[in-house]
Amino acid sequence: MKTELREILEAVKNNSMSVDEALGKIKKQPFEDLGYAKVDLHRKLRQGAAEVIYGAGKSASQMVGIIESMKKNGQNTILITRLSAEAAEEIGRFYTLDYRKEAKIGMIGPMPEPDGIGTVVIATGGTSDIPVAEEAALTAEFHGNRVVRLYDVGVAGLHRLLSHLDEIMGASVIVAVAGMEGALASVIGGLADCPVIAVPTSVGYGASFQGTAALLAMLNSCASGVSVVNIDNGFGAGYLAGMINHMEAKEKR
Amino acid sequence: MKTELREILEAVKNNSMSVDEALGKIKKQPFEDLGYAKVDLHRKLRQGAAEVIYGAGKSASQMVGIIESMKKNGQNTILITRLSAEAAEEIGRFYTLDYRKEAKIGMIGPMPEPDGIGTVVIATGGTSDIPVAEEAALTAEFHGNRVVRLYDVGVAGLHRLLSHLDEIMGASVIVAVAGMEGALASVIGGLADCPVIAVPTSVGYGASFQGTAALLAMLNSCASGVSVVNIDNGFGAGYLAGMINHMEAKEKR
Amino acid sequence: MKTELREILEAVKNNSMSVDEALGKIKKQPFEDLGYAKVDLHRKLRQGAAEVIYGAGKSASQMVGIIESMKKNGQNTILITRLSAEAAEEIGRFYTLDYRKEAKIGMIGPMPEPDGIGTVVIATGGTSDIPVAEEAALTAEFHGNRVVRLYDVGVAGLHRLLSHLDEIMGASVIVAVAGMEGALASVIGGLADCPVIAVPTSVGYGASFQGTAALLAMLNSCASGVSVVNIDNGFGAGYLAGMINHMEAKEKR
Amino acid sequence: MKTELREILEAVKNNSMSVDEALGKIKKQPFEDLGYAKVDLHRKLRQGAAEVIYGAGKSASQMVGIIESMKKNGQNTILITRLSAEAAEEIGRFYTLDYRKEAKIGMIGPMPEPDGIGTVVIATGGTSDIPVAEEAALTAEFHGNRVVRLYDVGVAGLHRLLSHLDEIMGASVIVAVAGMEGALASVIGGLADCPVIAVPTSVGYGASFQGTAALLAMLNSCASGVSVVNIDNGFGAGYLAGMINHMEAKEKR
Amino acid sequence: MKTELREILEAVKNNSMSVDEALGKIKKQPFEDLGYAKVDLHRKLRQGAAEVIYGAGKSASQMVGIIESMKKNGQNTILITRLSAEAAEEIGRFYTLDYRKEAKIGMIGPMPEPDGIGTVVIATGGTSDIPVAEEAALTAEFHGNRVVRLYDVGVAGLHRLLSHLDEIMGASVIVAVAGMEGALASVIGGLADCPVIAVPTSVGYGASFQGTAALLAMLNSCASGVSVVNIDNGFGAGYLAGMINHMEAKEKR
Amino acid sequence: MKTELREILEAVKNNSMSVDEALGKIKKQPFEDLGYAKVDLHRKLRQGAAEVIYGAGKSASQMVGIIESMKKNGQNTILITRLSAEAAEEIGRFYTLDYRKEAKIGMIGPMPEPDGIGTVVIATGGTSDIPVAEEAALTAEFHGNRVVRLYDVGVAGLHRLLSHLDEIMGASVIVAVAGMEGALASVIGGLADCPVIAVPTSVGYGASFQGTAALLAMLNSCASGVSVVNIDNGFGAGYLAGMINHMEAKEKR
Amino acid sequence: MKTELREILEAVKNNSMSVDEALGKIKKQPFEDLGYAKVDLHRKLRQGAAEVIYGAGKSASQMVGIIESMKKNGQNTILITRLSAEAAEEIGRFYTLDYRKEAKIGMIGPMPEPDGIGTVVIATGGTSDIPVAEEAALTAEFHGNRVVRLYDVGVAGLHRLLSHLDEIMGASVIVAVAGMEGALASVIGGLADCPVIAVPTSVGYGASFQGTAALLAMLNSCASGVSVVNIDNGFGAGYLAGMINHMEAKEKR
Amino acid sequence: MKTELREILEAVKNNSMSVDEALGKIKKQPFEDLGYAKVDLHRKLRQGAAEVIYGAGKSASQMVGIIESMKKNGQNTILITRLSAEAAEEIGRFYTLDYRKEAKIGMIGPMPEPDGIGTVVIATGGTSDIPVAEEAALTAEFHGNRVVRLYDVGVAGLHRLLSHLDEIMGASVIVAVAGMEGALASVIGGLADCPVIAVPTSVGYGASFQGTAALLAMLNSCASGVSVVNIDNGFGAGYLAGMINHMEAKEKR
Repeated sequence: MKTELREILEAVKNNSMSVDEALGKIKKQPFEDLGYAKVDLHRKLRQGAAEVIYGAGKSASQMVGIIESMKKNGQNTILITRLSAEAAEEIGRFYTLDYRKEAKIGMIGPMPEPDGIGTVVIATGGTSDIPVAEEAALTAEFHGNRVVRLYDVGVAGLHRLLSHLDEIMGASVIVAVAGMEGALASVIGGLADCPVIAVPTSVGYGASFQGTAALLAMLNSCASGVSVVNIDNGFGAGYLAGMINHMEAKEKR
Repeated sequence: MKTELREILEAVKNNSMSVDEALGKIKKQPFEDLGYAKVDLHRKLRQGAAEVIYGAGKSASQMVGIIESMKKNGQNTILITRLSAEAAEEIGRFYTLDYRKEAKIGMIGPMPEPDGIGTVVIATGGTSDIPVAEEAALTAEFHGNRVVRLYDVGVAGLHRLLSHLDEIMGASVIVAVAGMEGALASVIGGLADCPVIAVPTSVGYGASFQGTAALLAMLNSCASGVSVVNIDNGFGAGYLAGMINHMEAKEKR
Repeated sequence: MKTELREILEAVKNNSMSVDEALGKIKKQPFEDLGYAKVDLHRKLRQGAAEVIYGAGKSASQMVGIIESMKKNGQNTILITRLSAEAAEEIGRFYTLDYRKEAKIGMIGPMPEPDGIGTVVIATGGTSDIPVAEEAALTAEFHGNRVVRLYDVGVAGLHRLLSHLDEIMGASVIVAVAGMEGALASVIGGLADCPVIAVPTSVGYGASFQGTAALLAMLNSCASGVSVVNIDNGFGAGYLAGMINHMEAKEKR
Repeated sequence: MKTELREILEAVKNNSMSVDEALGKIKKQPFEDLGYAKVDLHRKLRQGAAEVIYGAGKSASQMVGIIESMKKNGQNTILITRLSAEAAEEIGRFYTLDYRKEAKIGMIGPMPEPDGIGTVVIATGGTSDIPVAEEAALTAEFHGNRVVRLYDVGVAGLHRLLSHLDEIMGASVIVAVAGMEGALASVIGGLADCPVIAVPTSVGYGASFQGTAALLAMLNSCASGVSVVNIDNGFGAGYLAGMINHMEAKEKR
Repeated sequence: MKTELREILEAVKNNSMSVDEALGKIKKQPFEDLGYAKVDLHRKLRQGAAEVIYGAGKSASQMVGIIESMKKNGQNTILITRLSAEAAEEIGRFYTLDYRKEAKIGMIGPMPEPDGIGTVVIATGGTSDIPVAEEAALTAEFHGNRVVRLYDVGVAGLHRLLSHLDEIMGASVIVAVAGMEGALASVIGGLADCPVIAVPTSVGYGASFQGTAALLAMLNSCASGVSVVNIDNGFGAGYLAGMINHMEAKEKR
Repeated sequence: MKTELREILEAVKNNSMSVDEALGKIKKQPFEDLGYAKVDLHRKLRQGAAEVIYGAGKSASQMVGIIESMKKNGQNTILITRLSAEAAEEIGRFYTLDYRKEAKIGMIGPMPEPDGIGTVVIATGGTSDIPVAEEAALTAEFHGNRVVRLYDVGVAGLHRLLSHLDEIMGASVIVAVAGMEGALASVIGGLADCPVIAVPTSVGYGASFQGTAALLAMLNSCASGVSVVNIDNGFGAGYLAGMINHMEAKEKR
Repeated sequence: MKTELREILEAVKNNSMSVDEALGKIKKQPFEDLGYAKVDLHRKLRQGAAEVIYGAGKSASQMVGIIESMKKNGQNTILITRLSAEAAEEIGRFYTLDYRKEAKIGMIGPMPEPDGIGTVVIATGGTSDIPVAEEAALTAEFHGNRVVRLYDVGVAGLHRLLSHLDEIMGASVIVAVAGMEGALASVIGGLADCPVIAVPTSVGYGASFQGTAALLAMLNSCASGVSVVNIDNGFGAGYLAGMINHMEAKEKR
Repeated sequence: MKTELREILEAVKNNSMSVDEALGKIKKQPFEDLGYAKVDLHRKLRQGAAEVIYGAGKSASQMVGIIESMKKNGQNTILITRLSAEAAEEIGRFYTLDYRKEAKIGMIGPMPEPDGIGTVVIATGGTSDIPVAEEAALTAEFHGNRVVRLYDVGVAGLHRLLSHLDEIMGASVIVAVAGMEGALASVIGGLADCPVIAVPTSVGYGASFQGTAALLAMLNSCASGVSVVNIDNGFGAGYLAGMINHMEAKEKR
């Protein structure tokens, strides 16, 4: 943006642009010019990072359009979340799409080599939490993170969790995915020495109130270093985990 | 009651009572006659058990009146819950009262010898849960149970809990008292092989919503054998724990 | 576990195991070795008890796999809850399965003889609560409890409940299953002299809020000895009831 | 009103009133003229009924002003609800006021003779519900109803309630006042053969949520003939009970 | 009951029944004999009143069974609520059934002549509230009440309501049925001089929260004489309205 | 109305109408005559404005009937909201209907020329909010407003919103449509110098609780000039926006 | 802003400013320079409008500091909301302050002449709503609006509201302030032909849930043209009402 | 831990420790020995990090005791949160305490030099959010982070936020503290390219429901990289921010 503004100013200085013309130009696109432009904001993490399409409520043809636009702009790694099998099949006719049914995620472009600080551990309380966990795991992997999956290590069978203490103690970031009473985040938060991102899931019945019980429990975690994302928001957790796991890289930019 | 009814019937048979008289008598006190009488219902657990006065919202003089009435009826061990220090002092002028300030419990009469099946373990997540836990502990002790206290063994510092595995594994009943995320009940429920009574406390702030977060978490516990009482209801948990810990005794009656 | 650790230590002492080997062995399975092992936790109640599979969200083939693994490990009595008729039919092709449609429960292996302290009474407020009650009843029966069913004894027709006073007064544990206003637990809790496990059901409409009204009512029961499990959690209530009804047996172990 | 309108029309016809004058008159007070006027609405029940002042949030001097205005309009029996002891003392300097501290009710004018169809029974679950019940009772009495008080007949001690079956079966209307689990309304609704007005109270703690648990329970009552007023709304229940208890009288008007 | 008990007593007196036999007989059915019997409770209103079957969750064949049992016991007027068209068709093969689709009500036996004190007015805020209103209206009519329907008189078009002032002022009881903001109850409560039964409906969207907004509004009505039943509970309102409208008759019993 | 009443009065005066006749006429339609009449209320905005039919829960034939009645009364521009495609097709057989599928709006009669004070800007946070926004936009347009659509300008990509500052600063009224966190209303409210009508949408998942999160956020907006309508209530916002945008015109009436 | 940017550009053109200097200057204050500057945003309504200080949580000395800063910047009319009597007294030592205790509003500078389109009517359901209404009324008056107060015109006494139909029909904007059931907004919305701003108040008890009942009712209003602000937000309503009442003026700017 | 276990094993091997002794030692402190020990867990971040005492509900003397114990164990930098001024004064008599009243934080020991990756930006929506923000800021600073405070940059005055774009774009982690509508987190999350920790505050009134509105808004943030902690949990946010800002350092251990 500095470049563009400088060009305008120099054009004014060189009389190749009138003051009024310059005024109009600056006025019209003040924010894109100043660097808060779409493209830049979307390539958030760093060069080479994947663009993300939130697939829920978008038709296959709409998504094909968006992908086309992205590809034209040189974006070749694209992650689509909440993608139905039907839409995935449709998109697959136009682009090579790696579709993971359980996580409802579609990926275009190669899975990158992990280049983060360390490992992202993704743990679930039960087997029903796995789809949300997979959304987190694939999101993290597609953003260049090494992911270790610890599934079905809920606190009601503590030995299952404790037998993985090494992975937990050695993690760079942990994503704790649990429904029902959501206690997993607190227990892991107490064991681990790294940021824990808690993802409540809508798994459960009755007084789980579609994940509200787990959400409240996680917000009230007495363990330090725990923060929470929306119910079933595997993508958000995986994305944030990847961001934290690339803290060093970012500083070097 | 059978006795009383039989007497009426025989009196009718012997013509010492008219049919109308008998009719009126049966009609008037059908339930007391049948044995669901006040006294019997109140002496619930077994002979020698303490009567309970719920002190909240009762004046000291009201309570003195109730105690007097109980004493007259031969009840010499009385437990008063939610008893303020002021009311305790007032009552203490009339009766020898063992008042425990933290638990807000007053006890009249001797603390009985434990005669339950085994041990009632009362565990808390933090130090702020102790008043509720003490209400449970004293209630259980005053009903003849041996109590082991495991305080401040919250799941965020799992080692504290695990270092007491022996007590947990050996308990007859466990009362798990916790606020905030209430995960203690699930973790204990997963470790223990006995009934776990979960007591959510109003300890916490913000999204704990005065104990609602802990309550919901406990209701959604994925561990088997866990049931829940009202927020801050230490008495209810201690009473039920004692009841369960006397199961054998009851059958022998 | 003590045995196993002792063997390792003695092997070290006898030089039949190197320090590093011992270290690795202890490190690797510290919790299984110490006695908080999977198998032991799963065979919670006592020898011969049924393993439980929570069928919700599991495919028939997944369940067949789990059953196979259990059978290999010598587990021949298996209870499957929340089992759909379709999955039951599928499983029935591989194993002899006693499927109860109303309770959505499948049982593999023989129904054991009741060996508890006394009787588990399971009462419902209305006829719509029966599926949840049956889940509780079959769970209790499959864990070796004698069950008496008192269905449709809601408090709006008190005579129906009172005509079963004998069963209520003689119960070892009572499971009170009710939706709508959930008053059954309080009334039974006031009549009975044993632990009452309250199960709110999602039966009702409007301001029942899918069982929340009953849940709150039960948590606020003014009767002593009442505790609550999650909405519609018949299994949890039946399991806990069975656990309490085997208190004596446990102590004898 | 018909009379008044007719007079206007006839005045127009007789030329004793101009069309414009008539127009203004009709336009200006169309509703007061038509009979839905303040006075009439306020003297709702019947001749001789008490006017009511809702005392909450009104200063003593404001209330003195209102009383004065009522007295001027010939209203000599006045009921003031939610009246603090301080304001009562202040008002008592100007008017002869019968103040009932527990119910926070002040009454000016003589308590009328009961002239309703039958008896209004007012029952409470516990002793803490009595202030709300007294608000209902005095309101009903001051509107000419015979009131029978059945206090502390909560469902956890069913014999207490059942020993008053005669009063319950013989009532014209019943007001059931209860906090905590609010089961009283359902049990009475099942026993009685008359309208039951349920009043949830804010008595309780934890998951009673200031009366919400009782409110929901009462709204979900499975007994027919039960309706509900706001939490702690003793006045509303007493007023409605009196209205129903004067149904016959009304028809005769 | 008095009769039955008297017979037993006289049989004892006459030695035609032994004391033990009498004891057993009284013990066995203490409540039915004493007057809290099923039949009597079910024939609540008065001789000739309809029995009611709550059809939700009952199969057509179950209902046929219940009807058969009722008919055997001499009950010829039966009201079935929440009855699906399919079940109605099935039942219609066995009994002459007057099925009203909109109200989901089926009626067996003749519609009785109105014999209440006066008129039950049933008003709705909008057209979408009509099914609930019809459930109330038919329930009231089938219990012997004259019903006047005022549909779509919501407060946003006040003239519609005010043009029916005569009906409102002349009503014996009013049932106000409204969803969305539920203001109808308050406005009618302010206009009418009789009991108003408010029925919130689940009509609306968004922040109506399935009738909760209307429910809360109605509970907070500043008009006297208003009470509330559960969301969509047309039957409850119609039944209660009929009960109130028969107050006089009852006293005469 | 004055006219009509005057005519009646003059007819009475002129003896062309009897007093009784006049009385009946006034009594019968007192409110319609006085100016709060149906037609007048429905033609709220000004001459030529569209009548509105809320299509939800109405059958196609019912709507055809209503349209017919409106047309008979000279109403030729009619807006139907929440109109399904099926009902639209059915209505289209009888009347020329401009049906917009996304907004579920049907329009009969010509789209009027914009004649408001200025421009109504309708902004959405995301693409999923567009159906609600279109309901607002078409409602406003059909009531004579010029509408500018700013879709997908959510606050997470602030540059998108800021690049439209001219439209926002120049708006007469702004409708801010957003789900999820609903922050759009606050940001626009801080930028704009005109009334902002916030419309929460049910877009989102988990802790959005069907639009509740957005609703609460909008109600708590720290920006001045913001008010809120019900969740998904595009019609309400569009109608109100049009009303405000015609403030001047109204005063001229 | 255009001026300032033009100056920079012309300085560059005239070589009186280097390109780098200009670049830095534009970069540093891009938004203030472009016209979205503090001052402009704060002087929202129009020249001469009052600045507003939200007094809650600010100390008297902090407010004196803010006032001083405003005065220095030529702002002489200042409105302070939620101002305690104590802070008002303190501020009054430094500035001439017109403090209105009931509304908790302090005003510095002269009350302006009304210059809006028409009249702002502010109506309340009861007397307890008056403080919130006065906050709205004084805010509107201080922003140059003629205000008509209609207090205590709640819907339970409809005649009180209807006797003010002229004011309601003639209003430019109406602010409807009500607690409890909040029905006032709907009734007024149905009568009036102008924007209605609904303000729920926390007046009420029990199931009013501190204004939630009124809030929900108002959001669900079936009347068109109604929007809602936060509970007790009199300022917000008065400010928005003033904004709408100056629509014409704004367009003329 | 490995060291300690190895020592035990080697002592056994060398016969300097008996098998039973070793068994007891391992059994007694299995978890402390294995590395999940108290000290290690508490010195979470890294050598030199501060221990934390949660001061709420602890007496001054209790805290003095804890501090003494920590000091004995060589811990010289201690952070006390939620510390009242009174308790601070008391503690100040024993230890040199740096007490910050607004944040309610006390610090013992020297404030460390910042050694994190970059800068922690702490932003608030308004001035009332500052106490929570200061709790976060001091926590972060005391754990070795450079903190930049951006207070009162709420979204209703976007220019205030945008004028600090440099700080936001350059941050390593951002803590967004806001009450009311909580939109700050989303807007910052959209602008920044780093993890954003959102802290809802209980600032607000009415429908803010003590911070619930902000909490829900933040959980629903449409910006990526945002996670949430409990309402008013400044400590949790500051601690987590510091943890993330030391990611690199951690990996180097």
